Formats: sequence, C-alpha cells, structure tokens
Amino acid sequence: MQAKSLSWRRRFSGWLMPLLLSLVAGAHAQAPVDLPSWNDGAAKARIVAFVNAAIEPGGRDFVPTAERIAVFDNDGTLWTEQPVYFQALFVRDRIKALAPKHPEWKTKEPYASLLKGDLKAVMAGGEKAMQQLVMVTHAGMTSDEFSAVVSDWIATARHPKTGRLLTDMTFQPMKELLAYLRANGFKTFIVSGGGIEFMRPWAERVYGVPPEQVIGSSIKTRYEVRDGKPVLVRLPELNFINDKSGKPVGIQQHIGRRPIAAFGNSDGDFEMLEWTTSAPGARLGLIVHHDDGEREFAYDRKSHVGQLDRGLNEAGARGWTVVSMKDDWKTVFAPAR
Amino acid sequence: MQAKSLSWRRRFSGWLMPLLLSLVAGAHAQAPVDLPSWNDGAAKARIVAFVNAAIEPGGRDFVPTAERIAVFDNDGTLWTEQPVYFQALFVRDRIKALAPKHPEWKTKEPYASLLKGDLKAVMAGGEKAMQQLVMVTHAGMTSDEFSAVVSDWIATARHPKTGRLLTDMTFQPMKELLAYLRANGFKTFIVSGGGIEFMRPWAERVYGVPPEQVIGSSIKTRYEVRDGKPVLVRLPELNFINDKSGKPVGIQQHIGRRPIAAFGNSDGDFEMLEWTTSAPGARLGLIVHHDDGEREFAYDRKSHVGQLDRGLNEAGARGWTVVSMKDDWKTVFAPAR
Repeated sequence: MQAKSLSWRRRFSGWLMPLLLSLVAGAHAQAPVDLPSWNDGAAKARIVAFVNAAIEPGGRDFVPTAERIAVFDNDGTLWTEQPVYFQALFVRDRIKALAPKHPEWKTKEPYASLLKGDLKAVMAGGEKAMQQLVMVTHAGMTSDEFSAVVSDWIATARHPKTGRLLTDMTFQPMKELLAYLRANGFKTFIVSGGGIEFMRPWAERVYGVPPEQVIGSSIKTRYEVRDGKPVLVRLPELNFINDKSGKPVGIQQHIGRRPIAAFGNSDGDFEMLEWTTSAPGARLGLIVHHDDGEREFAYDRKSHVGQLDRGLNEAGARGWTVVSMKDDWKTVFAPAR
Repeated sequence: MQAKSLSWRRRFSGWLMPLLLSLVAGAHAQAPVDLPSWNDGAAKARIVAFVNAAIEPGGRDFVPTAERIAVFDNDGTLWTEQPVYFQALFVRDRIKALAPKHPEWKTKEPYASLLKGDLKAVMAGGEKAMQQLVMVTHAGMTSDEFSAVVSDWIATARHPKTGRLLTDMTFQPMKELLAYLRANGFKTFIVSGGGIEFMRPWAERVYGVPPEQVIGSSIKTRYEVRDGKPVLVRLPELNFINDKSGKPVGIQQHIGRRPIAAFGNSDGDFEMLEWTTSAPGARLGLIVHHDDGEREFAYDRKSHVGQLDRGLNEAGARGWTVVSMKDDWKTVFAPAR
C-alpha cells in the first residue's frame, strides 16, 4: 500500500496536477502577466482584466485575434517629451550639421536664432518659422537618405538634461505593456503626431513595432528615376498632420478598422481615445499622467507641450484609466543599454 | 542478434530516419510547395526558387521574416478586370439604387446616360463625369456606412458575362500564391488603384488580407462627433491616387519599407515592380499576362483597361517573370462557393 500510495502521489504532482491546472487555466484563458514594472493597483488590474476578457474563448468580451488592435501615442506615452519633443532636437542638430553649407543662415531667421541657441526667438517666429525648419531638415533628400540620417542621429542622440540616450528615455512599463499585448495576440501600432519617417528607422528595435505599424505626420513624396535608379524624393509640402482629430483619420487610413485599446498622454490623443472607446464591446482607454517630478517630469495639466486638461476632466465619465507615473510605475525608464 | 538487428532497424525507421531527414531538410529549408493550380514551368519554378532562397537560413539570399513583404495589384492580378473594373459595376448599381431619391438624374448627365445603360455616353463625359459619379457613390456617408454598403453589394454582385459572383471571379492560382507566401513568413499586401475602402470589407474573407494590409486610392475623411457619437465622414474630395508612380508612394506611406516581391498585370503596376526589383538582394517581379481568351479574356497589349505594353517589352531585360494564364495556370478561377 505504501508503494502504491507514493506512486499515486508522484503521479499526481508529476503530471496530473499540472494537467488539471492547465485545464482550469485553459478554461479561463488567463495569460501569464509579465508587467514587472507596474505596481499592483487599479491601472494594472484594469489592463489585465481587459486582456483576459479579450482572449477568453466563448467569453462575453472575447475578441478574435484579427480585431485585437491597440494604438499607442509616442511622445509622452512611450518616451519622454520634455523639455521639448525629441524631434525638435533632431531639427536643431540637423540645422547645425547643415549650417556650413548655408553661410546665409548666420544672419537669416529663424536659422540665426537657432544656431545661437536662442529657442525663444525661434518660437517667436511662430508656426511659419517652425515649418520652415522642419522642411529644410526633413525634405529635399530621398526616403532612403532620410532614413539613414535619422538612424545615424538616434544612435548617439542624448537627452539635454539626463545625458542618457534618447532611446533610453523610453518608458519601461509601456514597453512591457506593448510586449504583453503582443503576447496575447494584439497587433500594436504607434499613432503619433510626430513624423512617420522619423520614427520608423528605430521603432522596431526600440519598441518592437515594425514600420508598417507606425502611423504619423508626413510630407509628400514623389517617385523619380534618377540615372536608372528609382527613388522617392521627399518634398517640402505637408501631406498629413496626424494629431487631434487627425488621429482617427490616420487610423482609418492605415489600419482600416477601429482599435479596441488606445494609449495616450495628452489632449492630442483625446479623439483617438474617444474613437477607440465609443464603439460597442469591451474597450480600453488609458492615459499616462505625468505627475512624477522626481523620476521624470510633472507637468501636463497646464503644459504647452503635452497638455492634458480635457482628458483628466473627462476620463472618469468616459471610463478611461488614468495611470499615475508616480504611483503606478515601479520603474520609469528602460535600463540603459 | 536477430532481435537486436530488428530493433535497430525499427529505431532507424521509427525516429532516427525522420530526425536525419528533418536535419537535412532544415539545412535547405525547402518548404512544401502548395500551388496545385500552377502547371510545372518556368514561372512556377521561379516562384519556388525565390521563396526557398529567401527562407534558407545562412543562405546568400536569406531574408529575415520582417522584411518578407510581398505586394499584389488587385484588378487583373487577383481578380478579373473585364469587361470593366468591378468597382465601375458598384458605381452603376449605386447610382441605380440612389436614383429614386434623385428624380433630377433622369435628365442630368452623366446620370441620365448611366441610368439608360449608355456607357459610351458616360465615357464621353470624360474624367470629370467619372469623378462626379465616384464622389456621389463613395462620399457623403460615414466610413462605417460605406463599409456596410460595400459588404451588402459584394455579397450578391455578379459578373455581367459569366453570371458568377464577383468574388468567384478571383484567380485560384494567385490565391494559392498568396497563401504559399504567407506560409513561408511573407506579409502579403494589396496595392491597388481601386478604392482602399472598396476592397477592405471583403479582402480578408476572399484573399486572407486584413484591412491594414490593403493599400488603395482614397478620398478625404473628416472626424466629427454627431449626437455624442464619433464618426468619420467621407468627403467628396480626392486624397490620393494609388496608381502608376503613386504605387511606390503609397507603399512607402503604408509599409515604410521596400517590398521584395511584386505582382501586377498592367503598366499601372510598372513603377511598383520597378521600385520592388531595383534594390539589391534577391527580388521577384511577376506579371500576369492575360492571353487566355477561352477561359478568361485575352487583351492587355492594346487594351484600354489593363494595358500591358511597356511591361511586356521590358520584362526580359528587367528579369521579371511573365505568367501566361493560358500555359501556366491549370485552373483560372476559384471554385464557386
């Protein structure tokens, strides 16, 4: 009897118990939760409940894999946007790099002020000055050339305050969230007001998001054959501004169906969250609230960059989850590479 | 000895042999070829050689999965485009359906001629008349409403000559090719001059291509909140023509990297094939040549719709594979559902 009993116990703990557990787990489709940088709290619980409901076969809120579309803003949601959008640092560095070929910039605005580091004077030039700087730095080359310029720049570009690589100023909890969603059959997209071709060269390496899942603002391009070699020439002409009410338009243009989850941090993401969460079925709207002045920057409610006013006011009524970076995140930044 | 020898033989055929075979097969990464509707010939051999080279780890022409992007034209490449583009049948049917609400169309061109079935008179109105008809039938509703209209229409729309469902006028060999590429890690995109929102409602069901992998021509949309419900309103204003030199532009805008394989049938696909095949590394350019008047339609060289003149002239020099529908395809159409 002794031997038989032992054998039964062994069998039970060896394979019967795991089998029974897997059957139970299978029925509820509870995926392993891999969000180590998130503190246990309402935000994490909401995310996990949403994902578990979406993947539970036969469940009331089950979502077929093809419809598991999640959209993420970039600036302020996946990486820092302070003290300025990082793409503005790119513009500054490119103007400096191009200056030797443009001696006239020494006395011509807005270049002169930018080269002197007087950003206030540049800002005084308004939208027109900003657009001029963007076009000079983003147009006039081929798409392959621009991609190479961005890749070279991002490999060494550092944050003006922390001195860290910009790609290390990405939020570790959000990168875990991207991976967690993908592990559960979600297709993750970036939907940013930033330049689509500014993000694509590094979004796959840094966020695991391939170029065809990056949506952003763009300028026009023209197909040309130069010396028998086809190129796409980037033109100094606006094509599309993927911000505010432009985000749902960009989402429809690129994805062609409504996402079921949206992640943003500013009122520039309001319409994207509204569009995502106002259709029938289970939806997840989530706002990253920048309230951690110690580990990152506390701003948003009154900020010029990344203002979050309407979003905070209406999140409760709309059922959107507000993530406190201070309380909900164990770690803020990705480990330095 | 007898028993031992048998045991060895059993072991060999039982698991050693399959193991050895799988090791050998793994080294060559020969994927099973599932193209039953293709005759053995140069075209099929070229496709299979290209795919096997792309998936062979360590091979000279190996392509990482993320870069295995294949683009397919739709009209004339994945389904018939004779006697007219099928989207023109949609326009005709929509005008008829909307006519009761527009009594003025009885005497107003180009509607009057269309309602009388006089397509020649419609054509005489030129591009302006065509655009007018497109806008009246494609704009003025929300994106969800348009999607529903297309879905309802395509469920019953039939070919004017064969009487078959339009979705059964799709080419079986090309559907096998789409599936074969996907089975080998390729991401398949549709890149069509047709309307992007005209294809999306049925491309997944018919071709296995999800909406986010459909690229086409588009009109502008505007985000609006109507009675607290957000909608995307389709505007009677051209956004982008995804044809000829617009195809590489559309590819870059949506995919953000250069495809390694392109499939077309007319000179509207010339630039897409040129863009795809003129970069370094192994590339596949393939043209479907409509030379089968018995089973489909023989036209293309001199046709107004789907003209293929430059493509046939230059295919040899450019290394593009020309598929003869007559000789290379065992079956032309997908079986009726």
